[in-house]
Amino acid sequence: PAKAKSRRHMWEVKPSEMANNTLNPIRAIVDGMKITPNPEKPMIALSIGDPTVFGNLPTDETVLQALKDSIDSQKYNGYAPSVGYLKSRQVVANFYSCPEAPLDAEDVILTSGCSQAIDLCISVLCNPGDNILVPCPGFSLYKTLAVSMGIEVKLYNLLPEKSWEVDLQHLESLIDERTSCLIVTNPSNPCGSVFTKEHLQQILKVASKHCLPILADEIYSDMVFPGCSCPSMASLSSSVPILSCGGLAKRWLVPGWRMGWILIHDRNDIFGPEIRQGLVKLSQRILGACSIVQGALEGIFNNTPPSFYNSTISFLKSNSEICFNELSTVPGLNPVMPSGAMYLMVGIDMDHFPEFKNDVDFTERLVIDQSVFCLPASAFEYPNFFRIVVTVPEEMMVEACVRIREFCQRYYRPRSCELDQ
Amino acid sequence: PAKAKSRRHMWEVKPSEMANNTLNPIRAIVDGMKITPNPEKPMIALSIGDPTVFGNLPTDETVLQALKDSIDSQKYNGYAPSVGYLKSRQVVANFYSCPEAPLDAEDVILTSGCSQAIDLCISVLCNPGDNILVPCPGFSLYKTLAVSMGIEVKLYNLLPEKSWEVDLQHLESLIDERTSCLIVTNPSNPCGSVFTKEHLQQILKVASKHCLPILADEIYSDMVFPGCSCPSMASLSSSVPILSCGGLAKRWLVPGWRMGWILIHDRNDIFGPEIRQGLVKLSQRILGACSIVQGALEGIFNNTPPSFYNSTISFLKSNSEICFNELSTVPGLNPVMPSGAMYLMVGIDMDHFPEFKNDVDFTERLVIDQSVFCLPASAFEYPNFFRIVVTVPEEMMVEACVRIREFCQRYYRPRSCELDQ
Ligand SMILES: Cc1ncc(COP(=O)(O)O)c(C=O)c1O
Ligand SMILES: Cc1ncc(COP(=O)(O)O)c(C=O)c1O
Repeated sequence: PAKAKSRRHMWEVKPSEMANNTLNPIRAIVDGMKITPNPEKPMIALSIGDPTVFGNLPTDETVLQALKDSIDSQKYNGYAPSVGYLKSRQVVANFYSCPEAPLDAEDVILTSGCSQAIDLCISVLCNPGDNILVPCPGFSLYKTLAVSMGIEVKLYNLLPEKSWEVDLQHLESLIDERTSCLIVTNPSNPCGSVFTKEHLQQILKVASKHCLPILADEIYSDMVFPGCSCPSMASLSSSVPILSCGGLAKRWLVPGWRMGWILIHDRNDIFGPEIRQGLVKLSQRILGACSIVQGALEGIFNNTPPSFYNSTISFLKSNSEICFNELSTVPGLNPVMPSGAMYLMVGIDMDHFPEFKNDVDFTERLVIDQSVFCLPASAFEYPNFFRIVVTVPEEMMVEACVRIREFCQRYYRPRSCELDQ
Repeated sequence: PAKAKSRRHMWEVKPSEMANNTLNPIRAIVDGMKITPNPEKPMIALSIGDPTVFGNLPTDETVLQALKDSIDSQKYNGYAPSVGYLKSRQVVANFYSCPEAPLDAEDVILTSGCSQAIDLCISVLCNPGDNILVPCPGFSLYKTLAVSMGIEVKLYNLLPEKSWEVDLQHLESLIDERTSCLIVTNPSNPCGSVFTKEHLQQILKVASKHCLPILADEIYSDMVFPGCSCPSMASLSSSVPILSCGGLAKRWLVPGWRMGWILIHDRNDIFGPEIRQGLVKLSQRILGACSIVQGALEGIFNNTPPSFYNSTISFLKSNSEICFNELSTVPGLNPVMPSGAMYLMVGIDMDHFPEFKNDVDFTERLVIDQSVFCLPASAFEYPNFFRIVVTVPEEMMVEACVRIREFCQRYYRPRSCELDQ
């Protein structure tokens, strides 16, 4: 008998559009690079945003103890609520609450890493066809997530000559009626920059004028060098609704643990119960963070000694200075001194390196010649720069800078106009 | 100056369609119920699919030790690859490999719970507008995920009178050219049923005939009562491509740890590199399972004594028998004896309970009168049944059955035709 519905008679299983549209620019660029180090020099990778790989920055003993206590309590093996244990949410709320931006347990949603926090925030605020404003250079995950969901990404410029402040005019020019969210990363990956209070207020003013909610990616909050302050965005505005994303990954040096959170700041009741409810519903799709890690949060926040945080920061600052001072005197390079996080961006005067097409070419050859690998900033949509991760051991940083200098000296050519003079 | 783009001048932040379309039928039903227990009887919840809540089913000491060893090694604090550590994937592959369905490390993707495994599988196989075949009654997450992604759900019937076997004719009648995946849950939540090898082969034949890939939700694999066997679907077919989803949650009694996996079975190379690559790409969105738990997998699989698994199963079987035997003789109830997992379904002869509109009404009143809460099977799209979770302590199970009997005796009415005779 003839079938009303046509069915398949041959195998044909293809990945979905969403899978095809899930693009990872870092992978796309790195996988296309020929990364064959010089066999005579041991490889130095300044590319890996994982502070644990070299063993020089272990987490604190108290952090590990808190996790073991959580196991021993036998209280945290079952399902936690999809937004996290109430007590653990309370602990995070207390830790980040301040008089200007108070937080309660119900303002906190625990997630599987800051990545899931970002995913939930974009998912709840944006529909396909909407657009979001993303810093350039910026962390690539925003675009990966947005594009896979059919959300358009508009890149707003950061200005290296102004310590990576936002080009506010450019930012404002991008806003239209389908703009559903402004993402601000502060402190910044890949720049290591930290906005001043005044600059954050300027950004908030733009958001307020155009009624744009903010996704504040504050995963590097409190990782700022001494003398520099870094207020949370939420502490500077009570009118703009803000979803602040954070986690244990960076400050506590345990990125593998996948513990993140969303802090909901909505003192003007713009998000209202709908956005909160939307976040709760989305959190039920796959549930969030490991219950054992949730159970450890109280111990982690209460017991980590200030000396741990301080020594991490001192180390990052000292390594940044070594790197910045070295590379400042290398012909053709323009490093930008960071104020926090774990990164430093270096501009390449491509005019002076006629042998190389671009930053990808430059960093590829740096591996081949000198066995030093830095991520070309094309991975952050920002050509002609490269990013250095400053978490490597000091002697590695020193050696890497020596080799980068040697490399640049070899390939540096004065501009032709300079030759003419 | 007139602006080309219209912008917002008033705050209006609404949750996305995806958030609005993320529906949790269990919450929708339970939140609408008046669950006020009888103050004179302590509450007994037979509704919670979390085996850890009553403390009578702790995980094994070796499982906890493996997790602590993972912490102490200090090797698992950093980022794992998005699909999991190679070594941990190898451990899972070895554990589940069998001659009929061999597995290698690259056939395994580690995920944040079985829920994320299911999410990734549906995401990679289906586009909006496609449909998937889902068992009825069945675990509600499939529909929650699919609907939120614009994928249609077609429910195929399971037959209680045939130990919840699939109505194969019904299943086949639902297939059309937009059907992109057949989900099979075996052993079953909510039924506790376990398909025979022959029945699994019949299902595979349908999939093969219509060239349908299978998502086998095998989170309860190996949780079958003595005398019953439960081959994996993949071991019974080399032609049908199968994504098998599993995790630590149930068999190792640690659902909060959020450790799941996808086993890719594709001996006929139907998925090919594209589907594998698609899964890898999707795994990079938020990364997967906690690295510490990944690091514990080897110890967990190697050291958990067989007696642990056996005593869990014995307990579940014994509790199931107590419950089945008790409720079999209760007028108006038709329990179906399970063969595995942790659930038992009970049919309600609604004709005999004219006072209640449906299963929701029935179970609501059971709480009010007797302080016993069972999930109405409307939550699984299967009205006129309720589900009992058999992980509660034995004395609770016994007491619950006594109260259910009392309740039914009170409200049972013979059918009018029987009265006429
Ligand atoms: C700016 C920024 N946000 C979010 C993340 C992701 O954090 P997590 O590892 O907790 O998902 C990173 C990681 O590098 C990051 O640099
Ligand atoms: C059939 C089925 N699949 C998947 C899951 C989810 O497992 P996990 O907690 O590992 O995400 C459950 C949980 O109850 C289930 O019953």
